[in-house]
Amino acid sequence: MVKKLTKFDPGYCSEPFKTLCTNFPNSDVYDPLRFRVEWGPIFHRGRLDGSAKILVIGQDPAQHETIVRRILVGEAGRRIQGFMAKLGITRSYTMINTFLYSVYGNPTAKIRKNPQLVSYRNLWLDALLLGKTVEGVVALGDRADEAWKMWKATANGQSFQKAFVKITHPTQPESFSKGNHAKLTEATKKMLKNWNSGLQTLAPSISNPDKQTPLVLYGDSFAQDEKSEIPEEDFPAGLPYWMRENDGWARRVGKTTMDKRANITITVPKKNLPQ
Amino acid sequence: MVKKLTKFDPGYCSEPFKTLCTNFPNSDVYDPLRFRVEWGPIFHRGRLDGSAKILVIGQDPAQHETIVRRILVGEAGRRIQGFMAKLGITRSYTMINTFLYSVYGNPTAKIRKNPQLVSYRNLWLDALLLGKTVEGVVALGDRADEAWKMWKATANGQSFQKAFVKITHPTQPESFSKGNHAKLTEATKKMLKNWNSGLQTLAPSISNPDKQTPLVLYGDSFAQDEKSEIPEEDFPAGLPYWMRENDGWARRVGKTTMDKRANITITVPKKNLPQ
Repeated sequence: MVKKLTKFDPGYCSEPFKTLCTNFPNSDVYDPLRFRVEWGPIFHRGRLDGSAKILVIGQDPAQHETIVRRILVGEAGRRIQGFMAKLGITRSYTMINTFLYSVYGNPTAKIRKNPQLVSYRNLWLDALLLGKTVEGVVALGDRADEAWKMWKATANGQSFQKAFVKITHPTQPESFSKGNHAKLTEATKKMLKNWNSGLQTLAPSISNPDKQTPLVLYGDSFAQDEKSEIPEEDFPAGLPYWMRENDGWARRVGKTTMDKRANITITVPKKNLPQ
Repeated sequence: MVKKLTKFDPGYCSEPFKTLCTNFPNSDVYDPLRFRVEWGPIFHRGRLDGSAKILVIGQDPAQHETIVRRILVGEAGRRIQGFMAKLGITRSYTMINTFLYSVYGNPTAKIRKNPQLVSYRNLWLDALLLGKTVEGVVALGDRADEAWKMWKATANGQSFQKAFVKITHPTQPESFSKGNHAKLTEATKKMLKNWNSGLQTLAPSISNPDKQTPLVLYGDSFAQDEKSEIPEEDFPAGLPYWMRENDGWARRVGKTTMDKRANITITVPKKNLPQ
């Protein structure tokens, strides 16, 4: 009948995830002046069936994530997908974020250490790590690293003894260089050097990767095949392929700051429309 | 920790729905010149756990549905929600559409009767009706009625002997009157008279409604409480309340026809942003 079967991520079908997605911190905990709570929480990407070998801790969702309702589906997601692929991990991963909502401005230490914010996130870490098959944890950037340390300070966290690396956040070079091409080149080179250390630390810990893959380190910049499209198995049912193939299709547009905050504009790539 | 528990619809967690959402007709069956296949299929709204007492057959998704990934979540959805509420049905329903994709132009009879298009839809009707607790089926408009008749012509369809009504599509008055206020008033009055017939046909068949509700018919126009917000239990996890509270937050915007086709613009209602 149809040419292809389209896998999808069914999402939050069983416990404890059903409850975690029912009982979560909202604007009482996440200050609307510091977080884009208006879009609702975005919880995860990847496996929830206990098969993950890698756990990724990202920072916060942006506009692509807001539409797809899964985290790390934009450029940062494509880069981390490539990082995991170098470890032979193509599906056995789960990803959560430090924050359920997009950061708007700079959350203070007090906000970041809000007990309810932290304890809720720790429930996810407990659910994904205790007595599970995760062999390595990757924190993307400072906030994720801080989140990890907070969990590691708990009794549950102390019981977890597998590999951990903090690596530079995947889009730090872009944030840092603000359009300056020379700075971008330099920052990317520095990040990939850091990522190589991360790979070398983690690789020995991954006992049974999805794909046996000889470790090939990054060069000074991303090669084409070092960024992967987001797997169809990670997307909710029915979403179109072009939402995974590349990013840039969702933008915040508006004349004023308030207009921009209120907006997400989706544009279907031209090649995906009948000509 | 949190003030409220937020129910959600977990979606396509079990069979046959997992397979139905994996193996579905795409642009080989739905002509991209006649359907907005670029947004991917949108499958249903409501219960998939066999508890439905009413099945609603709608026509096709529009832009709000495209974002939410559930059908009938805009104005038409609010109106049909109110129709079911008059029968005492507040959660025991399932809804599917005649078409998986938004109609773009006018699909010919040949397209509408495409065997693969029809047989796929019939799988959903089989799954939702055979040996299940549905006591009444409501088809919204001509296309939905045609879809029903096609299923009723099958062996499975012939075995189904419960109540059926075709009612005017909920936004037919708006389509018909094209901004002419007098025509809108008249068409709405006519539709609600038709809906009253539908209610009177169905009400005796609903043996065990969610809420015992004396049947109160419509007047000449919609009263405030005759349109209901879409229940939180029908939405995927994490979507914000304002997406259910009202519609109008998603529009197709663009200078040319092609620009418009490529676009969905989401605007958060002002009251849901920090002032």
